Amino acid sequence: MSTSHTAPSSITVLGSTGSIGTQALDIVARLGGSAQLRWITCNTRWQEIAEQVRRHRPYGVAIRDEFAYSEFRAAMPDFSGPVLCGEEGICEAAADAGNDIVLSAMVGFSGVVPTMAAIKAGHVIGLANKESLVSAGSILMPAVQRHGATLLAVDSEHSAIAQCIIGEHRADVDRLIITASGGPFRTFDADKLVHVTPEQALKHPNWSMGAKITIDSATLMNKGFEVIEARWLFDLPGDRIEVVVHPQSIIHSMVQFIDGSVKAQMGVPTMLVPIQYALSYPRRWPLDIPRMDLAAMGSLTFEAPDLKKFPCLQIAYDALEAGGSAGAIVNAANEVAVGAFLDHQLRFTDIPNVIRHTRDHMEHHDDPSLVDIIAIDAEARRVAKTFPSL
Amino acid sequence: MSTSHTAPSSITVLGSTGSIGTQALDIVARLGGSAQLRWITCNTRWQEIAEQVRRHRPYGVAIRDEFAYSEFRAAMPDFSGPVLCGEEGICEAAADAGNDIVLSAMVGFSGVVPTMAAIKAGHVIGLANKESLVSAGSILMPAVQRHGATLLAVDSEHSAIAQCIIGEHRADVDRLIITASGGPFRTFDADKLVHVTPEQALKHPNWSMGAKITIDSATLMNKGFEVIEARWLFDLPGDRIEVVVHPQSIIHSMVQFIDGSVKAQMGVPTMLVPIQYALSYPRRWPLDIPRMDLAAMGSLTFEAPDLKKFPCLQIAYDALEAGGSAGAIVNAANEVAVGAFLDHQLRFTDIPNVIRHTRDHMEHHDDPSLVDIIAIDAEARRVAKTFPSL
Repeated sequence: MSTSHTAPSSITVLGSTGSIGTQALDIVARLGGSAQLRWITCNTRWQEIAEQVRRHRPYGVAIRDEFAYSEFRAAMPDFSGPVLCGEEGICEAAADAGNDIVLSAMVGFSGVVPTMAAIKAGHVIGLANKESLVSAGSILMPAVQRHGATLLAVDSEHSAIAQCIIGEHRADVDRLIITASGGPFRTFDADKLVHVTPEQALKHPNWSMGAKITIDSATLMNKGFEVIEARWLFDLPGDRIEVVVHPQSIIHSMVQFIDGSVKAQMGVPTMLVPIQYALSYPRRWPLDIPRMDLAAMGSLTFEAPDLKKFPCLQIAYDALEAGGSAGAIVNAANEVAVGAFLDHQLRFTDIPNVIRHTRDHMEHHDDPSLVDIIAIDAEARRVAKTFPSL
Repeated sequence: MSTSHTAPSSITVLGSTGSIGTQALDIVARLGGSAQLRWITCNTRWQEIAEQVRRHRPYGVAIRDEFAYSEFRAAMPDFSGPVLCGEEGICEAAADAGNDIVLSAMVGFSGVVPTMAAIKAGHVIGLANKESLVSAGSILMPAVQRHGATLLAVDSEHSAIAQCIIGEHRADVDRLIITASGGPFRTFDADKLVHVTPEQALKHPNWSMGAKITIDSATLMNKGFEVIEARWLFDLPGDRIEVVVHPQSIIHSMVQFIDGSVKAQMGVPTMLVPIQYALSYPRRWPLDIPRMDLAAMGSLTFEAPDLKKFPCLQIAYDALEAGGSAGAIVNAANEVAVGAFLDHQLRFTDIPNVIRHTRDHMEHHDDPSLVDIIAIDAEARRVAKTFPSL
């Protein structure tokens, strides 16, 4: 746990038009001349990435969607840097030898292959795409070792754990305690959850994030994925990774050591801190955000998660325990279910049912390859759509 | 902040019959053969140190009080190790080249000279005697540098700060946030404080400690001394050291960094963790204490300290600001006042008045030597006793 890197001067942001990506670009802009944007990439939002190119002047651009790529080229004839297309283009940007750090901030399973490309290039990677580790942790982590890459967590919880572990010895860590806000439905009666709408679910009490992760927060699946992510990042079994509900989101997570001492990382809820910390690690840079004021807050509260009301958390623990293909299946089914819920085609309470349905109709693979995982992901999406109401 | 030492095999405990000292001996005993007690020392409690000699078999003993020394010798004719007497004897034990670590756990100003002896020998010192730094920080800290000694905090608050700072860079620390339980009179009306008794003051809500420090906790002078101690240990000015009242004493203190991130060290309130951490630093050893359970606790609360009701905290901040002899004067006057309160000779609310009286009747020295400090301490005790009711 003593890996370190000096301040990066050449930063690539995969998924630059998303919530994490745009905040990362703001941080890089505020660093001034000491840091340079290398590549920025997106899926379909060519107008937004064109605006980012005008404003942040990166070295190059990669756009996954072919139509969006063509529109970008037509709209930006004067951009003289390289413009790449497709997943191959994004992987080329991820693997570029000119990258000092690659921030992997794509949404969902689409982040797996580009993240692997950055790993194979031996890069320092700030990982904001937890689905990569949920689906393919058993493949990515050995590759990190093999290629001498460095994986830094950008999720606020995993950044908190990394901040608590720095300077400590791995053998002295007893357990991780991941905090959960509990989402917008924490205090709802179980029978009211049947009727909640995407609009209600998108109102997260503390964090401003993308739509998919906000729904995952409402089901606690996001927390379950974070448990799986922590299992891979910090190499601890599931029974040494706890979740505690903490509605104020001031403590971002904790580490308990073998002497009973617990370290916590805290602060006002903003992704700027973990994003910047991945760039500044192991140092810190000044950041102009509101400071935590505990006396003004008065109290921090805690409760155990309600696994009956929010079964997705238990589904994730079960997937961690099962290993192999289980994470990829749960992740794929969840993406389908969340998409259907956002489209008003699925009830909130059926999200875990879609995942269970998918899991129970697929074979378990103990030791899948990355190619297997890609096939399993596609198959799980197909099976998820056979859920009765879909 | 990267100083480290390997696990000590030869441990000396100055003040072994006190609250910290007895707990330290229990920890050393539980380490089994891997650690050996070198010296143990006491002031007058010869019967207790004789019992400790029988049980823990140290290499040698030093007893400050001459009568107690004679009693010990008479009672323990079979003890074959060296037995030293007086402050010189305690300093000889502190400076012994055979010490791997010296735990300085004497009460009050009496710890200053032996701590200096350990510093001059270049030892690793676990400092539980905060009065040393309050009175003579401006002398001890340069000596630590000069002699290549290492000072590890044993106070729970300063141990918490050290645990939060390990692996971080000094320049990245923005401020320290020291937690205070608020003591037994936190919720008392100001006019009720006039009538509180030593028996009430000795009932600390969370911590089991010696009498002197327990009274200091009730006046918040203990917290003020901790602010001064932190100033010396972590080299930050007083306006970057905050105090927040946290009645549950679960968060033991916090460090805020320049990026707004805050790290806290937490756990059930027990001195075993900071004592053992000073011995195990920078590693940790297993410790069988109850684990923190935030969900079971439900909430942690915080409030600003009430400087009007507890003026000793402000007196300490003023002494930090004044520097020079101010800490020694406040410490000496406080020892006199607390002693008089414990003897039912002074009202609780007159403790700060005795200190102000002493401070206002003494000259300020900007740059005292250790010899000056010893004279100033004696003079301050004399002046304190001229307080009208004493």
